[in-house]
Amino acid sequence: MREINFAVGRPDPLSFPSDALAAAAAKIISSRGAELVNYPDGRGYEPLRNIASQRFERSEGRPVPLDEIVLTSGSMQALQLITEAFTEPGDTIVTESISYGGSLGVFRNRQVQIVPTPIDKQGLDTGELETVLKRLVAAGTPPKFIYTIPTHHNPTGSILPLERRKRLLELAREYDTLIVDDHCYGDIVFQSESVPSNLYQLVEDDRVVYVGSFSKILGPGVRQGYFMAPEVLQQRILANKIDGGTNTLSSMIVAEYLVNYLWEHIREINNVMKERKNAVVESLEEHFGVLGEEVWWTNPPGGMFVWVRIPTATDTRKALRLAAKRGLYYTPGQGFSAMGEDIPFLRIAYGFPNIEDIRRGVPILAECIKTAQRGDKELAA
Amino acid sequence: MREINFAVGRPDPLSFPSDALAAAAAKIISSRGAELVNYPDGRGYEPLRNIASQRFERSEGRPVPLDEIVLTSGSMQALQLITEAFTEPGDTIVTESISYGGSLGVFRNRQVQIVPTPIDKQGLDTGELETVLKRLVAAGTPPKFIYTIPTHHNPTGSILPLERRKRLLELAREYDTLIVDDHCYGDIVFQSESVPSNLYQLVEDDRVVYVGSFSKILGPGVRQGYFMAPEVLQQRILANKIDGGTNTLSSMIVAEYLVNYLWEHIREINNVMKERKNAVVESLEEHFGVLGEEVWWTNPPGGMFVWVRIPTATDTRKALRLAAKRGLYYTPGQGFSAMGEDIPFLRIAYGFPNIEDIRRGVPILAECIKTAQRGDKELAA
Repeated sequence: MREINFAVGRPDPLSFPSDALAAAAAKIISSRGAELVNYPDGRGYEPLRNIASQRFERSEGRPVPLDEIVLTSGSMQALQLITEAFTEPGDTIVTESISYGGSLGVFRNRQVQIVPTPIDKQGLDTGELETVLKRLVAAGTPPKFIYTIPTHHNPTGSILPLERRKRLLELAREYDTLIVDDHCYGDIVFQSESVPSNLYQLVEDDRVVYVGSFSKILGPGVRQGYFMAPEVLQQRILANKIDGGTNTLSSMIVAEYLVNYLWEHIREINNVMKERKNAVVESLEEHFGVLGEEVWWTNPPGGMFVWVRIPTATDTRKALRLAAKRGLYYTPGQGFSAMGEDIPFLRIAYGFPNIEDIRRGVPILAECIKTAQRGDKELAA
Repeated sequence: MREINFAVGRPDPLSFPSDALAAAAAKIISSRGAELVNYPDGRGYEPLRNIASQRFERSEGRPVPLDEIVLTSGSMQALQLITEAFTEPGDTIVTESISYGGSLGVFRNRQVQIVPTPIDKQGLDTGELETVLKRLVAAGTPPKFIYTIPTHHNPTGSILPLERRKRLLELAREYDTLIVDDHCYGDIVFQSESVPSNLYQLVEDDRVVYVGSFSKILGPGVRQGYFMAPEVLQQRILANKIDGGTNTLSSMIVAEYLVNYLWEHIREINNVMKERKNAVVESLEEHFGVLGEEVWWTNPPGGMFVWVRIPTATDTRKALRLAAKRGLYYTPGQGFSAMGEDIPFLRIAYGFPNIEDIRRGVPILAECIKTAQRGDKELAA
């Protein structure tokens, strides 16, 4: 039985540029390898920070000064450092009610109070956010920051409209809190219409920290993430970065590769991703209709995930177990619930499985969910 | 003015194996690069853990089971995770009175109480340790662990004798505490007589965590450290490792290189290091005698540092400032004092500077120290 993995957000192994990366590695280690006897710079290897700046410039029209950019061991380390810098255990933060499980894990590990804010198909509901902020301030527990994924949300795929972005910034100013903008999926785009300006571009004061990653276009195994923050915030975040620095060997190889291939590789990745996303959506149309009227799914304009509403009566643990027995893996909705609730959703990550896996996997998933419906008797129990 | 750097413990850039490492990188990325689309394994890239096991076997006569070995982003991350696992802020730990500044920084960052134990030329004084442990237990503040560098101590170069190692383990058992054995300099050896067995080899229960590194033989820029710990301790340490895993790209390159060149490279490094250490000691003999009878220095059997006693009347800040003005950098004794005291010592790290730098630098250092002697008047003030 060949495993089908819809669980982990990772890129396609077949389009991994092994040979070009190998050539880049050989070249840069031959010429600059001896620099590895040094500890990494505090902000990390400059040529890779330069690429982060150019990525930002490509979408936002201006480069980010290199001293605002700090490389980290994946975006997870960035998020961990940010959380340690601005919260103590017991403090309050605000997230979207549905959010990335890895980030929620970082917050829970810090033992902060996660306050969810409702979302809709466009992302964070800023009207609801105002209510939440008002309530928290009145209760004497103002949030230390608002964590949001405004672009290609994980798992819902939503893109926050410009007006809401502006409102979000206004609210952050009004209630004097920070915003952490997780932009990790920003390069995986299927539609030509442009994404609204980034919060880091729109903000006019020192209130936004941007989290980015090279893992989504190369692979999590390179462990190259970063954050961008103005000096005053950056110093607080760096105060906890006592790890000896971010891996120079990996940074130099990734930089040497991306300096030549960044946009070409992103184009290639996006073509592959779009094909797979389409295969997921087509397969869902074909096989998930029978599950009833409650069921729906996203058709995301970018990112790596389709978010699927499944019937309320689903025994989600049973469905997961049944699927695993058939070699099929996915992440149940509970993993993305800010409150850790057992919600009738699941996420299909389509970066890793190929088209054949997708066409074979989706009907299996439909069967497992069907079999896992609680009967009336069970529902009454 | 060419800078002379005696400050940082890092290997020789001239003997850095750029070409062999470049070839190893090209080979392994071509063949296994696509694995980088996966998140690293929880314990890290297995072939590199295997090399850690073989290193241990070479000196201790038995390999360590691979599931006891966990790769980390440099040994600093290992130490940070260990500290987070076994202490809370305010807890007590025991260290040698003179210890590695980087480690002390990790402990201070955690806001633990560092209790120093006197050392002599053989390292930790186990008689004094017993007194310290007795006192701490009586005060209701038993230490969470004893942090020690038994082999090629940084900065003193001492090697703890076998009998003291055994006594240290007995005391840890008697007072029910853990031992963290920092073995980062274990491969840099100049003398053929063997170093006593490692604590991780001698221990008979789940009480010792071993910290190792590949940075000292390749370079801190590869960020490859590790710890070894029995299951019960390891699980507690791993609970805080939420960084997405240790850099696979760097691990695979380092492993591919070391699998062929580990012992050859260590031999080469040790030859270079020994030459430099000898140059430091000879230069000290020539130029430091004039500083008076209080002055002495170590002639270490391994490691990367010479520890120098300077006159008590030295204004250590002034000496440092004078040296910096002449482009000479070193670490003053205060950086290694567990209590952060301004002690009349300094450390010369001889891995990075070449022989010419050493012969030029030591007399400059002697002059700066001489100029920085406080007069009788100042001493009386």
